[in-house]
Amino acid sequence: MGKKNEILVIGDYTEWQTKMFKEFFESFFLTSTLDIKNLSIGLRERIEAVAFKGHSELGEEEFKLLPKLKLISNFGVGFDTISIVGASKCGVTVTNTPNVLNDDVADLAIGLLIGLSRRFADGTNWIRSGNWEKFGEMPLNHSISKRRVGIIGLGRIGYEIANRLERFKCEIHYYSRSVKKCPPSWKFYSDAVSLAQEVEIIFVTLVGGRETVNFVNSEVLDALGVNGFVINVSRGSTVDELALLDVLESRKIRGAGLDVFYAEPKINRRFLQLDNVLIQPHQGSGTFESRRAMSELQIKNLKNYFSGIKLVTPVN
Amino acid sequence: MGKKNEILVIGDYTEWQTKMFKEFFESFFLTSTLDIKNLSIGLRERIEAVAFKGHSELGEEEFKLLPKLKLISNFGVGFDTISIVGASKCGVTVTNTPNVLNDDVADLAIGLLIGLSRRFADGTNWIRSGNWEKFGEMPLNHSISKRRVGIIGLGRIGYEIANRLERFKCEIHYYSRSVKKCPPSWKFYSDAVSLAQEVEIIFVTLVGGRETVNFVNSEVLDALGVNGFVINVSRGSTVDELALLDVLESRKIRGAGLDVFYAEPKINRRFLQLDNVLIQPHQGSGTFESRRAMSELQIKNLKNYFSGIKLVTPVN
Repeated sequence: MGKKNEILVIGDYTEWQTKMFKEFFESFFLTSTLDIKNLSIGLRERIEAVAFKGHSELGEEEFKLLPKLKLISNFGVGFDTISIVGASKCGVTVTNTPNVLNDDVADLAIGLLIGLSRRFADGTNWIRSGNWEKFGEMPLNHSISKRRVGIIGLGRIGYEIANRLERFKCEIHYYSRSVKKCPPSWKFYSDAVSLAQEVEIIFVTLVGGRETVNFVNSEVLDALGVNGFVINVSRGSTVDELALLDVLESRKIRGAGLDVFYAEPKINRRFLQLDNVLIQPHQGSGTFESRRAMSELQIKNLKNYFSGIKLVTPVN
Repeated sequence: MGKKNEILVIGDYTEWQTKMFKEFFESFFLTSTLDIKNLSIGLRERIEAVAFKGHSELGEEEFKLLPKLKLISNFGVGFDTISIVGASKCGVTVTNTPNVLNDDVADLAIGLLIGLSRRFADGTNWIRSGNWEKFGEMPLNHSISKRRVGIIGLGRIGYEIANRLERFKCEIHYYSRSVKKCPPSWKFYSDAVSLAQEVEIIFVTLVGGRETVNFVNSEVLDALGVNGFVINVSRGSTVDELALLDVLESRKIRGAGLDVFYAEPKINRRFLQLDNVLIQPHQGSGTFESRRAMSELQIKNLKNYFSGIKLVTPVN
């Protein structure tokens, strides 16, 4: 085996991920893109590939510091902080790790709905507090099966959610920019407010980024109404968080299951006062199985680049 | 409209249920079967039908006190405390309320698996404790999709669970007394230990009663192994609870999602010390939708009896 290729590894990685990088590459580890400028000119001018993860900005300023850069292999589906326009302009290809996490995110979304609607936290507390023994049954809650469900953004993850919910005998409605290839019984809407008027549960599975900021706004939430649930497993930015907090506090919708937040990992403290939410710390793809598959795909893209083989999952 | 027929209503009912009984019948309300003996002879000797719910015993002793009894219309699928043999001997037909709650119980079972495997309680605490902000991601957990799943007792509820899990890309294995009509990819086992050896997740959906007491015993749990989850939505009696507590405490299985307990609503305090369980207070059918449908079916059986029409859901 010849000399290993050099890469820059930016972001927080676990021990086993760090080990994987070291196994295949001569790896230089940085916590943030802000640290690139602290590398020696010699190294900066040799680096052709970056393994990227996380929340720091990666744009033209960084591309200037890495003049030979050709590949950003991103860990994750979303790459909100990478300037794709800038990358394309500088001849840099970005890859991501789609698909391998779809099932886990879809599972989490379904679980959020069930845990929220069937009030798992209350149920557990009903036992722990002694109420079950003292007062009998916990208060009744609401069925999931046979509900009218709306998917906002029928991408791969939205599809997986809808596909699971068919077996829960739910009616599937979806908003998307165009009609998607899907079972004919799934009803298309070109407008999210019209969709929200027809359904009782909304799953938000939009892509992140500027175009979808506050896409689920107070108009959509009002249209959903008092029996409505909102489940968001996309990005905190896709839902107008203050509008959501307002309707949750005033009980204008029934509840929300949220894996993502606007300023995560900082969370608006108003969420912590609510009893009609089920909140999770952006753990949609947080399984051993998904993370392993994501890491393998991130590394495969890096390997393919250095071998001159077609990239597996280019974005631009 | 003529005079209303008289019925005895035994058990705990909600206000709207009480109202429904009064609307259709001349109803006499008792908390327990122990109170039957306190009724006047005149009433006892007129009663032909009982609306029954709950945990008190209903057997030959009670049938002697109600010599004209012809129908016990039970609220719920299970009727563990009714002597069916005794009822048949005395010419009493028992009806129950099956099917209308299958979806809700199946939903709860799926939710228990997701909430347990994806560690919802830990996720929420990770946010509330400030750990997300301080330390980043919560620890990784385990996927549900693509798992090998075993259904112990492929009745109607077991079928609904398996049918949902197909869309989670799970492999379906099942134990039953005989091969069931089901998709050919679902694999039959005549022995629960062999099943447990092949799967990572067990759903217990057996009928209650004497024949299934401690059916899931320490041998089955040992065969399931350290990566195994047990979900029980049937009856507390179907799983050897002390054996289950032992393997949970010693981490010989990964966790359990439980809606039912041996001495419920009393719960073995050892469950409250565990961080690898998700416990619920027997709320499988505890939705407004299911309870309404169950009440309607219970009353339909009573009405049919008095109209001389075929009972909807006779058991014996």
